Amino acid sequence: MIIVLRPDATKSQIDHVIERIHKLGLKTMVSRGVERTIIGVIGEEDIVRIQPLEVFPGVERVVPILKPYKLASRDFQKNDTVIDVGGGVKIGAKRVVVMAGPCSVETERLLIDIAKKVKASGASVLRGGAYKPRTSPYAFQGLGEKGLKYLAKAKEETGLALVTELMDLRDLDVVCRHVDIIQIGARNMQNFNLLKEVGRTKKPVLLKRGMANTVKELLMSAEYILAGGNFNVMLCERGIRTFEESTRFTLDIAAVPVIDALSHLPVIVDPSHATGRWGLVGPCSRAAVAAGADGLIIEVHPNPEEALSDGEQSLYPENFDRLMGDLRAVAEAVGREL
Amino acid sequence: MIIVLRPDATKSQIDHVIERIHKLGLKTMVSRGVERTIIGVIGEEDIVRIQPLEVFPGVERVVPILKPYKLASRDFQKNDTVIDVGGGVKIGAKRVVVMAGPCSVETERLLIDIAKKVKASGASVLRGGAYKPRTSPYAFQGLGEKGLKYLAKAKEETGLALVTELMDLRDLDVVCRHVDIIQIGARNMQNFNLLKEVGRTKKPVLLKRGMANTVKELLMSAEYILAGGNFNVMLCERGIRTFEESTRFTLDIAAVPVIDALSHLPVIVDPSHATGRWGLVGPCSRAAVAAGADGLIIEVHPNPEEALSDGEQSLYPENFDRLMGDLRAVAEAVGREL
Amino acid sequence: MIIVLRPDATKSQIDHVIERIHKLGLKTMVSRGVERTIIGVIGEEDIVRIQPLEVFPGVERVVPILKPYKLASRDFQKNDTVIDVGGGVKIGAKRVVVMAGPCSVETERLLIDIAKKVKASGASVLRGGAYKPRTSPYAFQGLGEKGLKYLAKAKEETGLALVTELMDLRDLDVVCRHVDIIQIGARNMQNFNLLKEVGRTKKPVLLKRGMANTVKELLMSAEYILAGGNFNVMLCERGIRTFEESTRFTLDIAAVPVIDALSHLPVIVDPSHATGRWGLVGPCSRAAVAAGADGLIIEVHPNPEEALSDGEQSLYPENFDRLMGDLRAVAEAVGREL
Amino acid sequence: MIIVLRPDATKSQIDHVIERIHKLGLKTMVSRGVERTIIGVIGEEDIVRIQPLEVFPGVERVVPILKPYKLASRDFQKNDTVIDVGGGVKIGAKRVVVMAGPCSVETERLLIDIAKKVKASGASVLRGGAYKPRTSPYAFQGLGEKGLKYLAKAKEETGLALVTELMDLRDLDVVCRHVDIIQIGARNMQNFNLLKEVGRTKKPVLLKRGMANTVKELLMSAEYILAGGNFNVMLCERGIRTFEESTRFTLDIAAVPVIDALSHLPVIVDPSHATGRWGLVGPCSRAAVAAGADGLIIEVHPNPEEALSDGEQSLYPENFDRLMGDLRAVAEAVGREL
Repeated sequence: MIIVLRPDATKSQIDHVIERIHKLGLKTMVSRGVERTIIGVIGEEDIVRIQPLEVFPGVERVVPILKPYKLASRDFQKNDTVIDVGGGVKIGAKRVVVMAGPCSVETERLLIDIAKKVKASGASVLRGGAYKPRTSPYAFQGLGEKGLKYLAKAKEETGLALVTELMDLRDLDVVCRHVDIIQIGARNMQNFNLLKEVGRTKKPVLLKRGMANTVKELLMSAEYILAGGNFNVMLCERGIRTFEESTRFTLDIAAVPVIDALSHLPVIVDPSHATGRWGLVGPCSRAAVAAGADGLIIEVHPNPEEALSDGEQSLYPENFDRLMGDLRAVAEAVGREL
Repeated sequence: MIIVLRPDATKSQIDHVIERIHKLGLKTMVSRGVERTIIGVIGEEDIVRIQPLEVFPGVERVVPILKPYKLASRDFQKNDTVIDVGGGVKIGAKRVVVMAGPCSVETERLLIDIAKKVKASGASVLRGGAYKPRTSPYAFQGLGEKGLKYLAKAKEETGLALVTELMDLRDLDVVCRHVDIIQIGARNMQNFNLLKEVGRTKKPVLLKRGMANTVKELLMSAEYILAGGNFNVMLCERGIRTFEESTRFTLDIAAVPVIDALSHLPVIVDPSHATGRWGLVGPCSRAAVAAGADGLIIEVHPNPEEALSDGEQSLYPENFDRLMGDLRAVAEAVGREL
Repeated sequence: MIIVLRPDATKSQIDHVIERIHKLGLKTMVSRGVERTIIGVIGEEDIVRIQPLEVFPGVERVVPILKPYKLASRDFQKNDTVIDVGGGVKIGAKRVVVMAGPCSVETERLLIDIAKKVKASGASVLRGGAYKPRTSPYAFQGLGEKGLKYLAKAKEETGLALVTELMDLRDLDVVCRHVDIIQIGARNMQNFNLLKEVGRTKKPVLLKRGMANTVKELLMSAEYILAGGNFNVMLCERGIRTFEESTRFTLDIAAVPVIDALSHLPVIVDPSHATGRWGLVGPCSRAAVAAGADGLIIEVHPNPEEALSDGEQSLYPENFDRLMGDLRAVAEAVGREL
Repeated sequence: MIIVLRPDATKSQIDHVIERIHKLGLKTMVSRGVERTIIGVIGEEDIVRIQPLEVFPGVERVVPILKPYKLASRDFQKNDTVIDVGGGVKIGAKRVVVMAGPCSVETERLLIDIAKKVKASGASVLRGGAYKPRTSPYAFQGLGEKGLKYLAKAKEETGLALVTELMDLRDLDVVCRHVDIIQIGARNMQNFNLLKEVGRTKKPVLLKRGMANTVKELLMSAEYILAGGNFNVMLCERGIRTFEESTRFTLDIAAVPVIDALSHLPVIVDPSHATGRWGLVGPCSRAAVAAGADGLIIEVHPNPEEALSDGEQSLYPENFDRLMGDLRAVAEAVGREL
């Protein structure tokens, strides 16, 4: 950590800061330049990080040097994490994994129908929301446990692994019992208690980036789960909020290589929520695979006109099937499989 | 709701959309212009709102006309809501209410000391976090129930009303028992299950705007609480995330009159979290009162250098006292009291 | 255009609005709903667009229906525009065109050296700045006309077409004389006088999206050039400003298919400026081609450590060469060439 | 400047960086920590600032310590700059200066009428656009030189000082001849050639912040003008672009005290463009004065329904008059006059 002092900082102010650092058991290195004095802090940066040093008289700015996350970092683990979600599906390996299915679980028959179709097209995980976070209290809120049972049924019929969102701690057990991957939604990325509880399980977790969160904060949230002992975390880029209005969110495609450079955890891209428009799902999925994503999560619905949520961004099964062909070609072009 | 068709929409596509609207029990009015056909939907807009009409072939865009929130709207209630939080404190009336105190509850002695000081300066509500949402799993997470007890003690000693953040449904009862206003933090603005539960109580709620949420979404989240039967909701502007880096967030001062025009609920401003720098708390507090805020929530700490969280943005009690004098003058200049 | 009236709008207010519309020679269609009256305007929307209808008493909101740009729109021209920049280079056709070269023109020898290398790797246009927009008045501002001459020399030696930025109207003639494509930089996207002048030439123009401009505004700026009679316009996505700090800007990859759907003009992606980090140029270039971009503009420098500007985002020629191989594979995977 | 090395940086990489710094005539101070080596650079930071040090092998991050602007900084000049714009009007002194008038100059009679009214209400500068930057090529583009003459006439009649926007270098002389303050619009904040030319005059300049520019960049643009020898620069906060859609831009009220802390230049606030809605101009003007702004620039039009531009955000003269009374009270409450 580097502490930059104001040009008019007095000697006693500087000494006061140094004294505080020393009291914390750390060493300092002081550089008195022409315009500014700078104090370098040597030792465990975490100890100082939480000190409100900027409030000390004479301090202009505090510059952290080390990353605030550890377990999620490539400094901690060099090799890529590969997560085994069961049924032979491994995330973070050579094969790009596609998760597909409806936004919400609606009926058992419909879900099984979609499951069969997306499996035939090459998906290996079935997605479907049983608990739905909705902006409006008047919108469809999901089937709850009944939805989880339909998902389990679809797994039985197709062998697909399952991913579903967990919104409420009270549902942790029942969700763990039925599905293979727990999704933490964008709105809950900083629901720290939820992260802690999920960290106590060993279940694979798909952690979605909050719509206004930086990559660094995403890694900090992953750190909550890892720190609990659960290393089966995959990170999901799903678009961030910007001023652009032609898409629902702005897919931050560069986040894929950025995360790959900073962290050993696999990266998944959600082009459906990022764009909010089915016509953009194809190009953005191809871009994600080309950029190096380890997986995709895509909404598919046989009848988007009748979908109870997010119909605008759902692909027809036949469009999904065609897209899977395109994605296979792109995956091979970048040395992956699909 | 207005449905705009693509210039190349066919007659059968248009008929298909109209048919669907009629099936929902609504009427349509069709305007065939030179370049586009437009369908107006007449009747309960909520019924169509959740239909994925943009997915229908031939549809270019769907434009909602009515607001998606009702109970939070001035259309529903013309007069300002005034919330009685007990101890004679009313929020939303002529007097601008100031809530002040430390970011986190640290020790009983310190808290009571601050409470006495902010009361002497004119604050009427004591703030203090017992449960702290922290970006890092390695940072101080709050004292929990012990913190609530210290708060209760401080109330006993000073008569100040209490506000504290609720992060976890499991703490709802204990928080309700000890404090007068439940704060829902920015990171939980769209934690819909938490909103629903809080809606079932009658406790006054301070609902903070999420850092990437629009005013409309803030009103939708308030709607969750109101729809549960709890009308004691105050909205809090606490800065939104933008590209500007000289402040922690960007205080959206215009949100104060915007909310006032759209909703009957009181508006509180949090200049401490919005700016993240104590030197900006004064000017932004004055601005908030001048813009028409019904209250302020300000961090005060007798020794920011030793604060366990957010020291950078805490005012010394003597600075707070001076600020209260300034605010009183501004409040009077705009026809309020403080 | 749809005019939504306030719930409390009086009959005389409504009549006043209607009268005004009629005075402009347009027709109205009035729908009196339960909660709101809505007025549809029938006729040339442009006439009403510039009327400040929102200021009329009783009006709540005005919703435009048609796009504010015409010539840039697919409604105006269905087929893709293909721009012939000379020397056999066509932009917007099956072949993805790669423009490469240093950020700034530095010396003649260096420029020719880079030109030969990028040509050997498959680039068909040479980029290089003679006039440099720099945030700091103390930074290198470009060689000016001398730089243009070096570019011309490099063209002579290699046959590559040339693209360079025009910042100042006073340089229009000399730039037109030397280069094949005029670049309008992000900071000048709304320098409307510059756009008008460039619209009077027939030179191909590479119009970069402003860092805070929407796709719609980019198309409006293109409209300025098209309206002047110059249809040789290509649009360039180069990243937008967001809160994310791990990249210099956020590459809006979805803008590629969004523009392709709205406009017939070719789309170029600039991964160097979008990310600001050479290590991200490869993944983002692959993503751009996979998403359907018609071209890329990439910074290449034989010695980034010594570059006078933007060294951080420049590729070594050998890395560029390797990338071109990767891009060729991705282009073929999506049915293009490179 | 601090150079942070990667954990795996080799000795020869570190030496290579150090060597480069020494070649530039600067000294280094190396701190070898447990996790990272850090190099402090001692000497003129500007020399290193433009070096692409991040491209050197082994370098993780480069952290500048000093501000990139000098002349605009309080480090350079402690005392507030007060600008004399003639006619007894001083900007940056105790009196808050109000600039008011129509968005565009329309007719001579109308302009003189508004001028008299805003003067009677207490404004001391008349605003009015002769050259208008418009998003659409089909919108009213201003009267040009004729507009300047009308402004001059209005000055003759009322004694008000004049401010108008300069968009094009070719108009510099004629604008200088007619008006007292040259406005550089938000879209031209980084039109560096325009800034340089304006820097060569001694005319007072109102420099508007670009809608996606940081305060630091605004100060860098001011630096261009100051570096040319023109110290009569006032900075204008006029809203930044964010995701919030209920206002045209988001007024960054904290920028007022932020700029005041960093720079000696006066700060003006434009609530009309920031909000885009006349109903918000009052509250935001009061907030600006309360936050410490040195001036306001407000759109006033006697008949907004007929205004050729920006009618939605213009105040009626009688509303402006009432607002001036309110602002006077707020100014006094914060120790200023108006």
